[in-house]
Formats: sequence, structure tokens, C-alpha cells
Amino acid sequence: MPKYPYQNPELPIRKRVDDLLSRMNLTEKVGQVNQHLYGWECYKKEDGELLLTDTFKEHVAWGGGIGALYGLFRSDPWSKVDYSNGTTAKESWKVTNKIQEYVISHSRWGIPALIAEECPHGHQGLDSISYPTNIGRGNTFNTELIQKTSELMAQELAAKGVHLALVSTLDLMKDPRWGRAEECFGEDPIVSAKMTEAIVAGFQGALIDDESNFLDKSVLELNKSSKQIGVILKHCIAQGEAQGGHNSGTVPIGQREFADVYTPLLNSARNAVGVMAAYNDIDGVPCHSNRTLFEEQLRNEQGFQGIVMADGIALDRLQDVYEQQTEAAANALAAGVDLSLWDETYTKIEEGINAGIIDEKDLDRSVRRVLAIKFLLGLFEQPYVEDPSKQWEALFAESETLNEETAKESLTLLKNNGVLPLQTQSKKIAVIGPNANNIYHLLGDYSAPQSEEQQKKTIYREIRKQFSTATVSYAEGCEVRNEEGQEEKINEAIALAKDSDVLVVVLGGSSARNFDMEFLRNGAVTSKGINMDSGENVDVASLTLGGKQEELLAKLAQLGKPLVTVLVQGRPHDLTTVETLSDAVLLAWFPGQEGGSALAKTLAGENNPSGRLSISYPRNSQQLPVYYYQRDASKQEDYYDLSGRPLHEFGEGLSYTTFSYDNLRVKMNIDNLEVSVKVKNTGSAAGKVSSLVFVKLYGGAVIQRKKFLKDFRKDFLEPNEEVELTFTLKPNDFRYMDVDNQWHFAKKAKIMIGDLSCDIQCDW
Amino acid sequence: MPKYPYQNPELPIRKRVDDLLSRMNLTEKVGQVNQHLYGWECYKKEDGELLLTDTFKEHVAWGGGIGALYGLFRSDPWSKVDYSNGTTAKESWKVTNKIQEYVISHSRWGIPALIAEECPHGHQGLDSISYPTNIGRGNTFNTELIQKTSELMAQELAAKGVHLALVSTLDLMKDPRWGRAEECFGEDPIVSAKMTEAIVAGFQGALIDDESNFLDKSVLELNKSSKQIGVILKHCIAQGEAQGGHNSGTVPIGQREFADVYTPLLNSARNAVGVMAAYNDIDGVPCHSNRTLFEEQLRNEQGFQGIVMADGIALDRLQDVYEQQTEAAANALAAGVDLSLWDETYTKIEEGINAGIIDEKDLDRSVRRVLAIKFLLGLFEQPYVEDPSKQWEALFAESETLNEETAKESLTLLKNNGVLPLQTQSKKIAVIGPNANNIYHLLGDYSAPQSEEQQKKTIYREIRKQFSTATVSYAEGCEVRNEEGQEEKINEAIALAKDSDVLVVVLGGSSARNFDMEFLRNGAVTSKGINMDSGENVDVASLTLGGKQEELLAKLAQLGKPLVTVLVQGRPHDLTTVETLSDAVLLAWFPGQEGGSALAKTLAGENNPSGRLSISYPRNSQQLPVYYYQRDASKQEDYYDLSGRPLHEFGEGLSYTTFSYDNLRVKMNIDNLEVSVKVKNTGSAAGKVSSLVFVKLYGGAVIQRKKFLKDFRKDFLEPNEEVELTFTLKPNDFRYMDVDNQWHFAKKAKIMIGDLSCDIQCDW
Repeated sequence: MPKYPYQNPELPIRKRVDDLLSRMNLTEKVGQVNQHLYGWECYKKEDGELLLTDTFKEHVAWGGGIGALYGLFRSDPWSKVDYSNGTTAKESWKVTNKIQEYVISHSRWGIPALIAEECPHGHQGLDSISYPTNIGRGNTFNTELIQKTSELMAQELAAKGVHLALVSTLDLMKDPRWGRAEECFGEDPIVSAKMTEAIVAGFQGALIDDESNFLDKSVLELNKSSKQIGVILKHCIAQGEAQGGHNSGTVPIGQREFADVYTPLLNSARNAVGVMAAYNDIDGVPCHSNRTLFEEQLRNEQGFQGIVMADGIALDRLQDVYEQQTEAAANALAAGVDLSLWDETYTKIEEGINAGIIDEKDLDRSVRRVLAIKFLLGLFEQPYVEDPSKQWEALFAESETLNEETAKESLTLLKNNGVLPLQTQSKKIAVIGPNANNIYHLLGDYSAPQSEEQQKKTIYREIRKQFSTATVSYAEGCEVRNEEGQEEKINEAIALAKDSDVLVVVLGGSSARNFDMEFLRNGAVTSKGINMDSGENVDVASLTLGGKQEELLAKLAQLGKPLVTVLVQGRPHDLTTVETLSDAVLLAWFPGQEGGSALAKTLAGENNPSGRLSISYPRNSQQLPVYYYQRDASKQEDYYDLSGRPLHEFGEGLSYTTFSYDNLRVKMNIDNLEVSVKVKNTGSAAGKVSSLVFVKLYGGAVIQRKKFLKDFRKDFLEPNEEVELTFTLKPNDFRYMDVDNQWHFAKKAKIMIGDLSCDIQCDW
Repeated sequence: MPKYPYQNPELPIRKRVDDLLSRMNLTEKVGQVNQHLYGWECYKKEDGELLLTDTFKEHVAWGGGIGALYGLFRSDPWSKVDYSNGTTAKESWKVTNKIQEYVISHSRWGIPALIAEECPHGHQGLDSISYPTNIGRGNTFNTELIQKTSELMAQELAAKGVHLALVSTLDLMKDPRWGRAEECFGEDPIVSAKMTEAIVAGFQGALIDDESNFLDKSVLELNKSSKQIGVILKHCIAQGEAQGGHNSGTVPIGQREFADVYTPLLNSARNAVGVMAAYNDIDGVPCHSNRTLFEEQLRNEQGFQGIVMADGIALDRLQDVYEQQTEAAANALAAGVDLSLWDETYTKIEEGINAGIIDEKDLDRSVRRVLAIKFLLGLFEQPYVEDPSKQWEALFAESETLNEETAKESLTLLKNNGVLPLQTQSKKIAVIGPNANNIYHLLGDYSAPQSEEQQKKTIYREIRKQFSTATVSYAEGCEVRNEEGQEEKINEAIALAKDSDVLVVVLGGSSARNFDMEFLRNGAVTSKGINMDSGENVDVASLTLGGKQEELLAKLAQLGKPLVTVLVQGRPHDLTTVETLSDAVLLAWFPGQEGGSALAKTLAGENNPSGRLSISYPRNSQQLPVYYYQRDASKQEDYYDLSGRPLHEFGEGLSYTTFSYDNLRVKMNIDNLEVSVKVKNTGSAAGKVSSLVFVKLYGGAVIQRKKFLKDFRKDFLEPNEEVELTFTLKPNDFRYMDVDNQWHFAKKAKIMIGDLSCDIQCDW
């Protein structure tokens, strides 16, 4: 029998939280809302033995325990952790157990710590599976695949003893100058919202649901599997709206713009264990002190039950507003930010309470939430993990397969004059370009050092493997950004190309960090890597390809050989010249560890590309913004010197086959609208097709938007196969915020799928 | 004795309006809120005789009179009016009298029409004085000069029988891609607000004041001089915020952004006879149906007593929101839009009232306002004007002098390595460039055809006149935008330059319209003039100089001769290359008819340039926005490939002398803050200096802005002269909209002038 009620797994979580909180002193409570340490600084290995550092021990003593611990396994140039000093996947469980044992035994009430890790596109740890970054995953329009791979990521992390995965899902790519564009599923709220829901379901299962409050259940009722972990969704919210595309810049948008665009995303986060507050302000109010955002819009309106975690040192940045850190802490706690990240601000809470600046009730509220999550995730019942060695092989094999599948579906074909798929009679293939033979360039930011085996999976090598009967050769051609000393590389590439039958040119950008770079306290890079032009804190003014890439391509194109350009990139680069010079243009985004293989199979026709753009692809940064759901105002669309339209519309993407839509029908029910349409594979290759349902609303006192995506699905069709698709739209799909700042439902709308459309009258 | 009370000049205007309104039928009321016709289509001249057109007569009959008439004298490529068929300044009075006589005699109650004309930088009519466009006038920082020239414009228009001048004052240049950038005083609310107040005072005198409601006075108490006319301020409001710089595009800014930036402008409009509603929406709500904007913010909060005029066909564009024109009319009337412009929408009011869609009370309210303005402006007592021939000469002479003075003060020197002022020993001066010898390129959009005499006042000719002992030669060099067939022009220029001692290269853009162009129903140009790249509806994506201009400059610079580049432009062009290639860079903006003379005198040192930038001058459009009063958020300021800072800061501008500030002091009084500082001319030339007072606020729950201009003045100082300047800041200069959407007063602030600053605590 448990000694205290909080130890009793049969009690509803709420009662356990109440009981535990009532026993804790102020120091212990402050300890629970702090996630102050860099995890990799908490332990070291000496002569094969795992030792806890003084830094760690002192912090546990300071807080009478520990709230959460970030990044025990983070490996990257910022943490300076790699294979020489880091923890491999198979060993990780030992570290978490050791840490947990210490924390529990140094907490009066035996409270375990939450172990949190970065997982924007797979865990940022050694040996981990690195999936395509979000922008590519957005192009898949395949939520099932995202959910399945999330399940695998959860298993991978759970086996290491991790409880919280920090996953980017909420940012929208409204300005591709932003370095974190790659972390966005695209510009569309519904794409991102459905991806978010898939990720929450994949990581958490039904741990939190719409039906009930988990506080009213006991852990025994939750049926949590050991493969599920909690997810912290980044970032809440509107960070992609920053003026000028400046990282963590100011966001001056209005209430109606915010409501239309971000409410679906807040809603999609409702069942997550947590969200991470965003660095930006919204119309002047920093998210980290925005009570309306967290307490009203997220919790009260959407039913969110989790915790709000601060972003790295973001609470210290509240000194943009509040002179004293205690004052900043008071406002952040009042706003509902429950858990810190690396900052000093939340370490001053006790001081703030003693000085009468912070209301202890606000602290208690956050402590309750943190404790509740610990109960929810079963930390009190199962604080330790078992040796997962036996499951690794199967888990990694399945992960690699689905990782490649994701990469395949993310590939988006924008031009093809018939050169693709490459005919097998191609005897000599030249693979050229700065992104052709470097695995790090495929991974995006927030990636860990790769093992020697992993480093072999480059595009060039995978093409060579795929086209085993051809001669496949490689030349770098030029570097990503470096302007100096590229002539020799270019000449070498041209020589190779002259001696080849077909050219595959792999251009783009790179988010690869090097170990000699410098970083901010929050891990964002500050030094200018000469060939690293994207990722966090690396915003660009121009979207033109860096360095000598266009020059290289122009010279290769002059040879008049079949030329396929592949763009490996985290943001859209200017393709106006590239498309003119190329016979085919294939976007690979940052395709992850299996990107090379996915690409090789696609070039060979073994995979039929099915990606569609989840952004409006701009011509260059001079015409920004071009996102498609702007209000449909009578305006001057074109510039004197440039079209006002994007180069490619949201949803564009070619296939090796063709599809056509027919027979669009709608049926109005009491509480939903059924939309059905037939889609047919009218070409000669099997392939997948993403079908997108757009709605244009009419009515109200505001200018409605041009259109808004409301639903989508992806289907596989054999040649000549036709299927009927049905979509169910809800009244909320027809609502908009009107001049009175209230939600209204449109009485009239147009439904659009493919080239079909129909007008409807709405009864709700 | 007057027959009816409304005819009695001794009665308060309110009573006269009540009386007159009570007598009018619905048709007559609808007539009063319509400004439907293009004025130049209302009459023609046949064999020297003035004839009224059927179009005009039918419209008078339709409305039982006429509310207002726009553009009787508008002359430009859209109206197709020039010296061959138009009305000269001296003849204009006859036209208005003829029109007025007809209107009065065909109105049951003898109600005269309001005669409205465009006057964005002088009247857009034949023979008129064309001043620098607003962006140059903003650079003067000289409100006295703006007020004086406004007085002269009012006299010019009054003598023609015009009652309402339509003047751009309220737009901010937030995105220089916008074609109407030239119509903005700059990016700063206070610069624009103070210029607006100067313009209202200049045109109207004290016709409407802060002390009382003019409705409570009789016309006898108003002391209106015959030289004063009413001003309609364009555009209300926030049009410069349009996404992408697209003309009349959508504006998604929030309530706090709006309040901080636009409240000073709404306040500055409080005593104007009218404002014109802007084409754009604000967070979805079109200005033309924005009740909060006009009825609450402008009237109730700021005390505005005038009329709100629609923009051209903007009411028809309300079909972006309302399907039926009657519905659009209902919402626009309810929002407080009192007078139409060319649209069909307000011609449907009677239909809308009969159908029960429009509330007649809303119509009555607008009719009252229109009638009140007619009484206010003395139309009932003095509907006709007298032959003004005798005053023209003196008026035009004074206007030309002050026009040149304005042009002089608008010139802004951004670089000078000592080449300026040009030494008189320069024997051979080459004046080169597409803007060097064409008066139309100096005038900006909304300009009338120029007389032969006026056309002679080009930059080249004025330089030749000024440097009478030198040999001054001219070559076009290249055209503004045309890329084709420029080689010969470039070669000719280089040949000339080789044979010269100093080069004056006049580059930039052009808003000159040609008579072969096509236009929208609202007069905005739709065809792409090959050398016309700015003005209404001509937005650009790139800020790089058009055509072969940079190539021309580079080739000229290679000659190694002293090279002065003059930019004649309505928006900032990319100067990064220009500044490298030039010994001096002088911004002339669109300097108006006397711009050539002003420039020549400045090159010669007879005028010391004193313009300062009223915008943050961007490097190019890839780094937009760069306006200086963004919120001071912790962000990544620089791009990977470009600085995040503007090329030149707001307020920059060189002189032929130097100034220094000293002894900044503040004195807190009960209801204001006195700021004093000493400024000294520390160089060897006499000159004017604009002193700018910035404030940075602290406190509240929002991120405060980097700084905000609060006051400025301009002083002339002899060498070594020192003066003490005093500025009086009011509590409102320290307010900001906080998270609660209410105004708050900062308790702490920093005051900045020049390189000096001091911190203050505020008691209010």
C-alpha cells in the first residue's frame, strides 16, 4: 500500500496532484517549473563509467528535485557532442535511469524528472533516424505516413527513457526568407493542423482525448503503452509571420487575421501533452506573457490540457518588456507558461514570491500542470526503462523503410519535359552539385552527427547503386555559398558532363552546422558558415541560389545534354532561371537519411513522385508575400517589373501519370457537408494523387479570402483506376471572424477540387 | 429678407441645415451625396462658347441638383485634356460660374455644387504650379513652408471657383514598392501628421478649429476669407501598409499597431473639411464600410466635423464584400461615407431605401454633412467667383519663389566626398541621364500637361543657366526603363563625358503618363509605359534603377572624372552601387517645376542642401520592411546575405556645413515636458538644420518601439551661430496602446536629439 495518496495509482490524477502539491515547499515547487540545465552537461563518461556532474547535482539540490531536463542526448555542433564523447542510442537508457535514480532519491517526495529531447524530424541524437524536414513532409499531404513515422519516433525515444519529444508543427512558412522555413509544413493552416494531429496521435496515441479531462482518470484507466511518449508542439504561435522574415521578429497582425489562420492550429494542439511558447510577439505582446493566447484561446476555447513550455532563454528575453526578471516571471506564470527552458528568469520565482511580485497561486497552477503530466506519462509508476537492445534492429529497419517512403512522397516534380524517368539505356550519368554527395546537406537543422555508415547514403552513391548497369560519376561543381575558388570545381564538372549522357545536378541550400561554429545561448547559430545558408537564425534576403550554383547550371545546360535539376533545400529558392535551363526540376527539400535512395528510385521510375507544393512557390523575395489565402481584395496584382503571382501555385506537383476529376457533388446534412468527387488515373503509370478541397466563403462585413484548404487525402491509383472520394466538411470549415471579432458561419460558399467547383448555400 | 431660414446667413449652420433638409425630397437628398461625374465631361467649348453637356444636365435633373463635381479642370492623359481642348487657369472661373449657375437654377432650393479638384502637389490643371511631390516635401521637415505653399494653392484654386482640394497627406510609405510612395511624406506618422496640420491650416485657415463645432456658428462668425478653400485629405487610412506593396491591397495589421501608428494621423485630420476613404481594408474590413474608423475613431475620438468622401469607384469595389450595390451603399452610409466618387453604388440609394435595405436616417446624416460643408464654405452666400486675372501675376510669382524654396529644401545629400558644391572653375559640365532634360519626369503622378514655357525648366537647362560661364552639354545616356536600343545613347553620353570636366548624372524613375496610355475607371494607369515606372497602380518588385541606368553610370564612372549622381524619383531606388560609383549623391525626389533651378543652385553652392530622409532608405526590396519604429524585439537583425539595417537611417542627410548638439535638458511640467537643446553650426557655410526629437518608451505589457519621432523643427544658422531650441512634448507623446487595447502613458522614457539622449520619469 502506498504511503501517501499521491503514490496511489488508483486515484484520479487530480487527487494525486492535489495531495503531492500540498506537501511541497516553495523551493520544491519552483524546482518543478524549471528546466534549467543543458542535459549533455549533466553527466560525463570516465573510463567507461557514467558520472553525474556537480552542475547537475547542485541544481537538483537547489530545487529539491528537478522539473524537467532537456537534451541529455542532444548531439550537434552546439552541444559539442559527437561519437567521440556522446551517448549512442543503445546506451541511452542507462543514462536516463542513472539521472532519474538520482533525482528521485534527492527529492523528498520522490518526484521523477521529465526527460525532454529535440525531435523536429527525428531525434537529434546519435544513431537516430533523421526523417525529411517538415517542409518536405508537408509536400507529402500524407497524414497516415506522418502518424506512422511519429509512432516509430516515439518508440525510439521511449526506449531511451525520454518522456517529451519537442516537435515543430505549428509554424507556418509565411515568409521563406526565414531560416526556420524548413521546420514548417508549409503556409497552410489546415495542412499543418492535420499534420499536427497526426503527430500527436502518433506519439501519444489517445493519451489525451476530446472526451474527457485526463485529471479525472487514474493512470490505470489510461492504458498508456510503453511505446507512447508526450509531445511538445513548437511553437505557439505565429512565429512565421515575423516582419522581414527575421528570426523571432515582431508580428504585427490583427485579431481577424490571427483568428482565421491560427485557430485551426491551436485546435490541432488541443490533445498534446504540451506546446512550446514562441519567441515572437503578436501585435506587441510576447507569446511568453500572452495570457489570452494560453489561458483563453488555447485552454478555454480549445480544451488544451497540457503544459506550456518556454522556448530556450525566451523568458529572459521578456526583458524586452519587463525590467526585472521577477516581473517577467510573474507575467509569464500568469500567462500560463508552466515550464522554463535554460533561462534565469524562472530561477527567480522564489525571490519574486518573497518580494510580493509573483502570486504563488500562479506558481501552484503551473506546478500542478507539470506534476499532472508526470502522472499522466506514468513517471511515478515506471520511472525507469529497460535495456531496449533487443528491439533496436526491428525498430530501425521499419523506421528506415518508412523514412524512405516519406522521402519518396515528399519529392515534388515541378517540370518534366519527358526526360524523367531516366531511360535505363543511359550509359553515363553525371551527378553534379554541392548537395550531391554530402549526407549532412540532406538533413536540415537540428540534426545529429552521422555514423560512418549513415554518411555513405548520399544522393550520388544511391544513384550509383540504383543505376547499377550505368556509369555514374560525381563532381561537386561548386560549393553551396562560397564564391571564392570555385572555377576549378566548375571546370571539373563540365569536363565530367561532357563525357556523360545525362546530367543530374543537385543544387540548393544547406542547414548543416559545423563544429567550429559559434552559437547563442539558445543554440541558434551566430557565425556565418560559408556554405550553411538556412536553419535557425540563418535568414536570407535573396532567394537566389547561393554561390556559383546558377553559373554552374548555365554552363552545364550549354552542353545540350538531358539535364535534371534536383533542389535540396529548406526554403524555396528562385527557380525562374533553373527551370529555363533544366529538362526536369525535382524538389527534394531536405529529404533526410533515405533521401538519396528515394531520389534515385524516383529518377529511375521505380517511384512515381507524388509531392505537391504546400507553399505558394515565389519567384523571388521581391514579390513576397505570395501565400494563397490572402483576402480577395480588388488590387493591383502584378508589379511593373514582375508578375504578382507565385511561380507555382499552392498544390502544384507533377506525376509520371495524369489524374482527372469528375462528378463533384455535395450533400448538405444537419451538421456537415459531404463532398464527393471521382478521381481517375488517366495515364499509364500507377501513382498517388493528393486531392485538395478548397472553400471560398461569401458573406459578412469582411473581404473573404481567395480560398482556404479545408481537407485533403492521398490515394494510390493504378492506370485507368477510378475511385470516388468523400470528404466531410464541418460547420467550422465555413466560419470566419467578422468585423465584430466574433465567429460567423458563411451562408454561401464555393467548393473547389481540382478544376471543378460548385456553389453551395449553408444552413447552419 | 431671406424667404426660408436656410437662406439666412445669420442663423447657425445647424439650423440652416435642419431647415433645408426638411424641405428636400428623397431624390434631392440622394443627389447631394453623389459626386458621380467626371468634371471634364460636363462642358465643352465650341467656337469659343462654353456649352454644358447633356451628360451634365441629365445628372442634375436626376438628382434635383448636384452634390459635388470632381475635376472640371483635370488635365492629363486619362481625361485626355490638354492645351488643345482644356481650360486655362485664367478662364476657369467662367466655367465654374456657368456650372454653378445651372446647378443652382435647376435645384428647387438653389443648392450650389461643391467643386472639387485634385491637388496632391499643386492643382492638376493647366498653367498650375506643380510643387515637389510629398516624399520630397517630407524631406524638408519644414512645416511653415508647407503651410505657406498650401495657402498659395488655396488662392490659386479659389480664384478658379474651386471649393475642395483633394490632397494626399495621410498615406505612409511603409513599402516603397508601392507606386504611390511618392504621395507619402515618408514613413513617419508625426512627420505626416504635422505636414497634414500645416496643409489644413494653409488651405482652410481656422475655418474649423478645436474650440467649437462649426455647426453652432453662423457664416458671419466664421470670417472665412475668399482665399480659403476646404481640403479633403487622402487617404483614410493605412493604405501604405498593403501586403506586397500592391496598390489598394489588403492590410492585415492589428489594433495596437494601428493605434500607435495611425492615431496621430487621424488626429491631424480633425479640422479638415473632409477626408477621402482609402481603397484598402484593415484586417479585412474595407475602409469604405468601416464604421469604427469614421464614426468612432475619426469623429468621436478626434472630433472630426467634416465629410468623408469615397475614393474613385471604391464604393463599387465594396462588391468584394457585398453582392448588391444597394447593400454596399447601406453599409457605406452606415459607416459614415458621405459623398461618392464616380461609382454607381450611391446612385442606387433611392432604390435601396425603397427596398428597405438602406436606412434613410443614414442618408440624412450624410446629406446634413454635405450641406453643412456647403454652408461652411459660403457657397450659399457666394456661389460665384469674380474674374481673377489681375491677381494671377503676383500669385504665380510668389508661388514660383516658394515652389523653388520647397524644392531646394527637399534636396537630400547622401554622399559628398568634397566634389560639391561644384567649383566654378569647372569649364565643361556634362549633364547626362534620362531625367536630365524632361520636365514631366520632375513632376510625379497627378500632373497636368505643361505649357511650352514650363517645359523649358529642365535640370539641364537650369544648370546651363546657373553655370553661365561654363560649357554645359547634355546627353540622354539612356531611357528610364527601356532596355532596347540604348547602346547608341550610352555611347553618345560617354563621348560627351570624355570631353567634359565634371559629370552630373540624373537618374531615377518617372511617373510621367503619356496620352497613349490606358486607364482604369478610377484614373489609375493600366498600360505599362515603357519609361514610366511609378505613380498610382505602378508598383515594382525590384528597387534597382530601371533599364540601363546602372550600366550607364558604371561606364561613366570608369572615366574617373568628378561624378555627381542626382536621383529624380518617387520612391527609393537601390543606391548600393550608385554610391560606390559616385563622388556625390543627391536625392531630388520629384522636385516639381522649379526642381531644375533648385538643383542647379545647390550644385553651385548657392543653396545649401538641408533635406533629411523622412524614410529609412532600404538597400533593396529584399530586406523590406525597414521602417525605424518597429517594435524593439530581440531578433536576428541581419540576413545571411545582407544587412538588416537600411542603407541610410531615417533622418540622415548631409549639408555643406556641419552641426553639433549640446546641452540637452528636460523640464517636467504638470501637463508637458519641455525639452531644450543647443545646436551650433560648426562648419563654414550658412545652412538650415532639421532637429528631430525621438522618444523611446518603457513599460507596459507590450514590446515598445525602438523609437518614435515626436517633434521637429528647422532652423537657419550662420557659421558658428548657436541657438537654443525648445520643444514641448505632451502626455499624448508618451502614450501607447497596451495589451488591454487601451491607451496608457509610459512612466519612463528616453529622449533623443542628434547624438544626445537622457532618461526621464513621467508623472502623468
